[in-house]
Amino acid sequence: MTLRQVATEAGVPPRQLQYYFGAREHLLLGALEILNADAERRAAERMDELGADPSPRALVRAVLLELLPLDDARREAQVVHAAYFVRFLTDPGLAASVRDSPPALEELVASLLRHGQDLGHTSDAMNPEAEAAFLVAGAQGLQPPVLLGQCEPARAVELIDLQLNRLFP
Amino acid sequence: MTLRQVATEAGVPPRQLQYYFGAREHLLLGALEILNADAERRAAERMDELGADPSPRALVRAVLLELLPLDDARREAQVVHAAYFVRFLTDPGLAASVRDSPPALEELVASLLRHGQDLGHTSDAMNPEAEAAFLVAGAQGLQPPVLLGQCEPARAVELIDLQLNRLFP
Repeated sequence: MTLRQVATEAGVPPRQLQYYFGAREHLLLGALEILNADAERRAAERMDELGADPSPRALVRAVLLELLPLDDARREAQVVHAAYFVRFLTDPGLAASVRDSPPALEELVASLLRHGQDLGHTSDAMNPEAEAAFLVAGAQGLQPPVLLGQCEPARAVELIDLQLNRLFP
Repeated sequence: MTLRQVATEAGVPPRQLQYYFGAREHLLLGALEILNADAERRAAERMDELGADPSPRALVRAVLLELLPLDDARREAQVVHAAYFVRFLTDPGLAASVRDSPPALEELVASLLRHGQDLGHTSDAMNPEAEAAFLVAGAQGLQPPVLLGQCEPARAVELIDLQLNRLFP
């Protein structure tokens, strides 16, 4: 894909695209930001559907299910992310831009698990940071088999629920 | 990448490559098989280093650590796999070829967890299939942050060890 192709598709002169985004790398990062903002907006809508004062467990579950391709919008976003990932791996400039970004989802899940501990919903012996990191990794790791059709979406949700049953007994 | 480029790189006439592999799709699958066979050989060598009669826990750990980019060979194989994954997602012919392949790693880990139950190393209340699927997903899901430099390899190993501490108390 070239800047010229993107400009043609967008119906703007290539020079104008270059003026707004500068290097091709910034165009890619800009597109990713839009994609992520869309995903966050949809996630926030689904969080709202949990009603007032949802439990830490319900919130952790909602965060993790956003990582599974459970509808077309999530599926599409995750396929695009996979393509970006390969690009990030092979482009040192792009790689640097993510390396220092904080792992926001893990921190969010860890804080929800700590809140669960405060409320007595989950064991004090549990390590919130380590469990959060592994929950997020597990949900992310379920993306490929679900996207490829090797794992049914319902099975992926069940696997997450079994971990939540363990953490919130 | 075209068949012609591959033929030039391999120093064979394009017609000969076509004769051996047929469609471009078969060439890609053939290359993936070679990549996977290499990875399995290296994994088997590391399994041998566990000595005679390793415990189920040691074997599960060894299987999971094969999924982390802990050295150049694993890192390289995982980057190539990520590129294949995007291709699989967007090419229906390739997607069909993986959809029906059994999830061999999950089955291996599940059988090791069942063996752990038989030996009394792990709880009978544990669900070997579900825990195995989530362990494999978690290890796979740790690949991107480690490959991108967001998660230290030692931290990824620690997260897996904490899950193994839980499963093999």
